[in-house]
Amino acid sequence: MATESTTITGTGVVAGIAYAPAIWVHARPSLPEPGATVAEEARDAEYERFTVAADTVAERLAARADTVEGAAAEVLKVTAGMVNDRGWRKAVRKNVNDGHPADYATVAATQKFVDMFEAAGGLMAERTTDLRDIRDRVIAELRGEEEPGLPSITSERVLLADDLSPADTATLNPELVVALVTELGGPTSHTAIIARQLNVPCIVAAGPPINEIPAGEPVLVDGASGTITLDADEETARAEVASSRERAAIVAQWRGPAQTKDGHRIQLLANVADGQAARLAADTQAEGIGLYRTEMSFLSASQEPTVEEQAAVYRKVFDAFPDSKVVIRTLDAGSDKPIAYATLQHEENPALGVRGLRIAWGNDGIMVRQLDAIALAAEGRGDDAPTWVMAPMVAREREAKWFAELCRERGLTPGAMIEVPAAAIMADRIMPHLDFVSIGTNDLTQYTMAADRLSPSLAYLTDPWQPAVLRLVKETCRVGELTQTPVGVCGEAAADPKLACVLAGLGVTSLSAASTAVAGVGAQLADLDLAQCQEVAEAVLNASGATAARQIAAEMILG
Amino acid sequence: MATESTTITGTGVVAGIAYAPAIWVHARPSLPEPGATVAEEARDAEYERFTVAADTVAERLAARADTVEGAAAEVLKVTAGMVNDRGWRKAVRKNVNDGHPADYATVAATQKFVDMFEAAGGLMAERTTDLRDIRDRVIAELRGEEEPGLPSITSERVLLADDLSPADTATLNPELVVALVTELGGPTSHTAIIARQLNVPCIVAAGPPINEIPAGEPVLVDGASGTITLDADEETARAEVASSRERAAIVAQWRGPAQTKDGHRIQLLANVADGQAARLAADTQAEGIGLYRTEMSFLSASQEPTVEEQAAVYRKVFDAFPDSKVVIRTLDAGSDKPIAYATLQHEENPALGVRGLRIAWGNDGIMVRQLDAIALAAEGRGDDAPTWVMAPMVAREREAKWFAELCRERGLTPGAMIEVPAAAIMADRIMPHLDFVSIGTNDLTQYTMAADRLSPSLAYLTDPWQPAVLRLVKETCRVGELTQTPVGVCGEAAADPKLACVLAGLGVTSLSAASTAVAGVGAQLADLDLAQCQEVAEAVLNASGATAARQIAAEMILG
Repeated sequence: MATESTTITGTGVVAGIAYAPAIWVHARPSLPEPGATVAEEARDAEYERFTVAADTVAERLAARADTVEGAAAEVLKVTAGMVNDRGWRKAVRKNVNDGHPADYATVAATQKFVDMFEAAGGLMAERTTDLRDIRDRVIAELRGEEEPGLPSITSERVLLADDLSPADTATLNPELVVALVTELGGPTSHTAIIARQLNVPCIVAAGPPINEIPAGEPVLVDGASGTITLDADEETARAEVASSRERAAIVAQWRGPAQTKDGHRIQLLANVADGQAARLAADTQAEGIGLYRTEMSFLSASQEPTVEEQAAVYRKVFDAFPDSKVVIRTLDAGSDKPIAYATLQHEENPALGVRGLRIAWGNDGIMVRQLDAIALAAEGRGDDAPTWVMAPMVAREREAKWFAELCRERGLTPGAMIEVPAAAIMADRIMPHLDFVSIGTNDLTQYTMAADRLSPSLAYLTDPWQPAVLRLVKETCRVGELTQTPVGVCGEAAADPKLACVLAGLGVTSLSAASTAVAGVGAQLADLDLAQCQEVAEAVLNASGATAARQIAAEMILG
Repeated sequence: MATESTTITGTGVVAGIAYAPAIWVHARPSLPEPGATVAEEARDAEYERFTVAADTVAERLAARADTVEGAAAEVLKVTAGMVNDRGWRKAVRKNVNDGHPADYATVAATQKFVDMFEAAGGLMAERTTDLRDIRDRVIAELRGEEEPGLPSITSERVLLADDLSPADTATLNPELVVALVTELGGPTSHTAIIARQLNVPCIVAAGPPINEIPAGEPVLVDGASGTITLDADEETARAEVASSRERAAIVAQWRGPAQTKDGHRIQLLANVADGQAARLAADTQAEGIGLYRTEMSFLSASQEPTVEEQAAVYRKVFDAFPDSKVVIRTLDAGSDKPIAYATLQHEENPALGVRGLRIAWGNDGIMVRQLDAIALAAEGRGDDAPTWVMAPMVAREREAKWFAELCRERGLTPGAMIEVPAAAIMADRIMPHLDFVSIGTNDLTQYTMAADRLSPSLAYLTDPWQPAVLRLVKETCRVGELTQTPVGVCGEAAADPKLACVLAGLGVTSLSAASTAVAGVGAQLADLDLAQCQEVAEAVLNASGATAARQIAAEMILG
């Protein structure tokens, strides 16, 4: 007899089935109110208590930083550094001197910095999450409570959380965390991006019902359909996991280069943010780099690096793929990636602000020096290792023409991101100036739907399956065919195997995503003829919305 | 012999030619630094000095409020109220008690409030402009300097400014201010909107060169071409003004209803924000209301008004047009129009946030009560006075369907704003559910170009002449013709006579703009056959950019 079960539905962002007990990211401690006064003679001891707790937290973060590499280590080190910040500690000291207990002194000192950072706006305002994080860790330590944030995990678990911060996810072990489920977030949220990198089944935007799931309760997570089943029959659940593993085994056996069942080639490339990620990508079946995010290497630069310094950074990426195509995107600073030397502060709507190519519009030195650095780094790369360069946030023909000229003067192959709706709508004017384009589906979705892709409240809109977005992809591909210009996709959409088939059907010639997604996409493409991809694409373009589009594709594409 | 002249070019937003001496909106006072200490016995007198200055400023603002009506009076009264704020005055008192002179005490007290407001974000953060404004007025008063902001003007002047605030423009007298020129701003900036309402020739985004124009220098302003000429030959200048007046006279003689030379009807309607504006519109040749902005009547409401209270507000608008069409837009709260009872705080990108229809998505009571109020207010309106209701920020078929059902249940005629790119792209799915649509070109441009329409740095992108935007208008009109659904335009684009001809050529059936723009648009439409409008539209759709599109239209449409 089947057990009755409860199902919660969210947005599935990484396919795969997992079954394990739930574990929660530890709740944040309740914050103390002012009130109690520490006697004058006890204040030094009280501050010492704070110092010990803060040092413990800093050491723990630094130790965790040593167990990981790359960006994850960087995040943890920066957070540890904030715990050691002298200004912050001085503010706590002052509050303790005024008679406040250590926990409230920490809260008030942190609030002072949060207010200052928020008043400063931009990058500073984003740091407030980290500030609150270290406040909570220190308070928990002061009270002898468990450290909030990621718990230590020793056997397989499904991790549940409101939402995951970069600090929370930096040290996730995908061997033990078999699935991620968050109440908030969208398909392009931080949680989703990390889950894709780790290749862990993941559901976001599952909503308040997940708060009812107690720790220890076994849950069945299906990342493809976006369902979380409670009280699942254990035997059935284990069978589903096994069958999902079989699929994973097929994916594991897939060997590139990617093509449809009837031999239509689709180039699969990797999105990377630094040399280390490029080296990791080189070990996968990615045929090259489809998107190198220049800005990620310069986020902490206070002034513009020299041409030679920039070239050194590019060289690390080229070195990982000495005999393959590498596509460099020029600085996409601004919006959620402010860079001290390049971006405006205090924009009301930074995502609609002076970002990407616009920073160099009227200040072309910043672009010229980047292109000089890319050309310098690319010296000696052979004909089998083309260096393509594309500009972000192109919206007009003039911009494409200007950028293309600067590239050609330096022997570089010019392209553009298609991520502003106007660029897709005006593809017939823009593409003749370029040798390739790459569609950034994350931003294109954000602008086409007029919905912030980082807003958890609008995740239902910012879905790359939106037919409106796919129609713009189609228009771009139509012009690509007319003008014989390759059209790539480098948003998170390219990591979704079924959506990848739709994109191939629309006429996209290359797909670039997290390198861990390559095999899954390749295996799915190998299952279908091009004509089938085109049929699914046509059906999806006429769907009433994103949910209907997903359902149509799921029904038409088995496996 | 012709005098040599210098020309500065900006973005012309209201046509018309003016020639008069320049006058500057008085510069803000320099802010005092801390340092000087007031002796303890002089502090009461020092605070008294502040009180007198602040009272003078408050009285002056209140007196100016009495000389104007409606929204302008409201703005001035709110500002006057802030000068009388007890918390702010108490903060100044405290600073004076600490020994600071009145001017620095005012600066520091204001900064404290600015920081608090900015930390609070949203609506509060926008109030900081007003706070700084009263600070500057009080400091100027303390020093016996001229009041900053709008000067008093006694003969014809061209008003120059960096940018104009709502407070600056509230009391502009269009008899004496014959033209407005600002360094910053864009075609949809506050300055542009006010200029259109007052029908004063206006150029925005004229750039830093205008700072070189000394007060008293005669300047020739051509609001159609966007040029400011210095050292113009006086005789020529006066001739141009006369010829412009002749054109104005033709416009003044124009009698509606609007149609092209060959008799193709285009309905011209008025955009209004309150009952008073509706009554003013009734005195023009507007055939009805094309856009009533519900939210403007509720900006200061701290909680949701009752259905009966809402109905009373709608009734004022209906009463102005008892026998004509009135199009109501439901609450477009959020983004730059936060409303306490409806909108989220602290959005990173409010223009891409939970605004318009999205507020009611998942909280439908707020929409249901509005529609109940509209239905209640519309009771008794006859067949010749149709009541159309449209939802802002519709992006998906589901939303259109849901809204249409709510309207039809109440006997209201449902429509939607087309302002999210997805709505235009998916017009074939969305429009079959509706009885009409209205294209909001301001927001549609903002999202299509991914450029904040209030950002002075991006005015070059947020131009309704962008061919990308006009292509979306065309797609919407194509579906409108197929489905026999009227397609209106209610953005600022509808106020530009030449662009209005392009829109008519694209298939738009009604245009709604500031009621002062109606006659100019009507007179221009009367000059062209529909086929000519279509020809211009076709040429403009294939222009390389907004500037080229304007030029093409200017060459093809004389007059």
